[in-house]
Amino acid sequence: MPATVDFYFDFSSPYGYLASQRIEAVAKEAGCTVNWHPILLGFIFKVSKQAPLTTFPLKGEYSLMDMERSARLHNIPYSKPEPFPVGTVSAARAFYWLNDQDSEMATRFIHSVFKAYYVDSIDISDKAKVIEIASTNGVDSNKLAEALDDDKVKSKLKTAVDNAIERGIFGSPTVMVDGEMFWGHDRLEQVGQWLATGGW
Amino acid sequence: MPATVDFYFDFSSPYGYLASQRIEAVAKEAGCTVNWHPILLGFIFKVSKQAPLTTFPLKGEYSLMDMERSARLHNIPYSKPEPFPVGTVSAARAFYWLNDQDSEMATRFIHSVFKAYYVDSIDISDKAKVIEIASTNGVDSNKLAEALDDDKVKSKLKTAVDNAIERGIFGSPTVMVDGEMFWGHDRLEQVGQWLATGGW
Repeated sequence: MPATVDFYFDFSSPYGYLASQRIEAVAKEAGCTVNWHPILLGFIFKVSKQAPLTTFPLKGEYSLMDMERSARLHNIPYSKPEPFPVGTVSAARAFYWLNDQDSEMATRFIHSVFKAYYVDSIDISDKAKVIEIASTNGVDSNKLAEALDDDKVKSKLKTAVDNAIERGIFGSPTVMVDGEMFWGHDRLEQVGQWLATGGW
Repeated sequence: MPATVDFYFDFSSPYGYLASQRIEAVAKEAGCTVNWHPILLGFIFKVSKQAPLTTFPLKGEYSLMDMERSARLHNIPYSKPEPFPVGTVSAARAFYWLNDQDSEMATRFIHSVFKAYYVDSIDISDKAKVIEIASTNGVDSNKLAEALDDDKVKSKLKTAVDNAIERGIFGSPTVMVDGEMFWGHDRLEQVGQWLATGGW
């Protein structure tokens, strides 16, 4: 049994948001904690030759409906984000900077960013909004503003994205349990079963 | 509660095969039967601007692994089909011709074609193999061979594919419950819940 599971996501991924609301309970059931890894699908899609789900004819419309239906099924507050998709580089950089100082605060920040975008319809691609969200979690706004322009912080996110691609990650959300990959909000039940049984 | 659910699939779709092994039990639980609709993803992908899952870097390798892992989880016999993907026009035409005469025999034929491809590694794109599979289900080989070249049978399949696109179907498997669409083997649990509760 691993002590942690790795949870990869893009803040702009609705299924990533839905899974973020459930992964901690799934992990806790097995006595694990969650390592959060925000990534940037824009870079990953270049490698995996993909495009945002909602840009495809027929599949796009279905996906928007399925996101809402999945949210209702799990009683997760959700409103279709607008604009969509958005760049999440500031939110992701802020996370990695925060996480080095206080991982619990960094986790609260993740949930706050998701809530801002999927519940309160705030455009999280806006750096100023990201700083505002962080400040409600007790983060010093001036320090964060500086960090977001810091080359070391930028390179931290770049390394995280490179490492994700290195592990074979192509979509959001992806959960890694030991070496086993599970892609999609709809694989959380399997993640739970894998953790409970050690695999099949 | 509907009396039937519509099950759309391509014989060349591994997740279509997995779902074909489970959909009758899901429907039966709710007192429903299954209407089978073989379709051709090749045509549908032209409209929905998609390509076979396994052709994408990273996602392709994951998918091949996930198909096997999903089969193991549900105790469904499965070996990676080779060649893959294959053209399934003969198998689909044979189904529609058979279904007009004897829907139970046509259902048995579906399961036989899937077994041939995913268990016995038979190339189901080969018209002669399709005729052989049908003959083991008691179908007259000469009549089927004639039917596969019959313009009326060809147009039956074309109409089925056109109707599927008209309903918004873009992938395999897709289950329609009244007007509600569920795409993917991993939505069968939701199909069951929808049938049991009338939706959420």
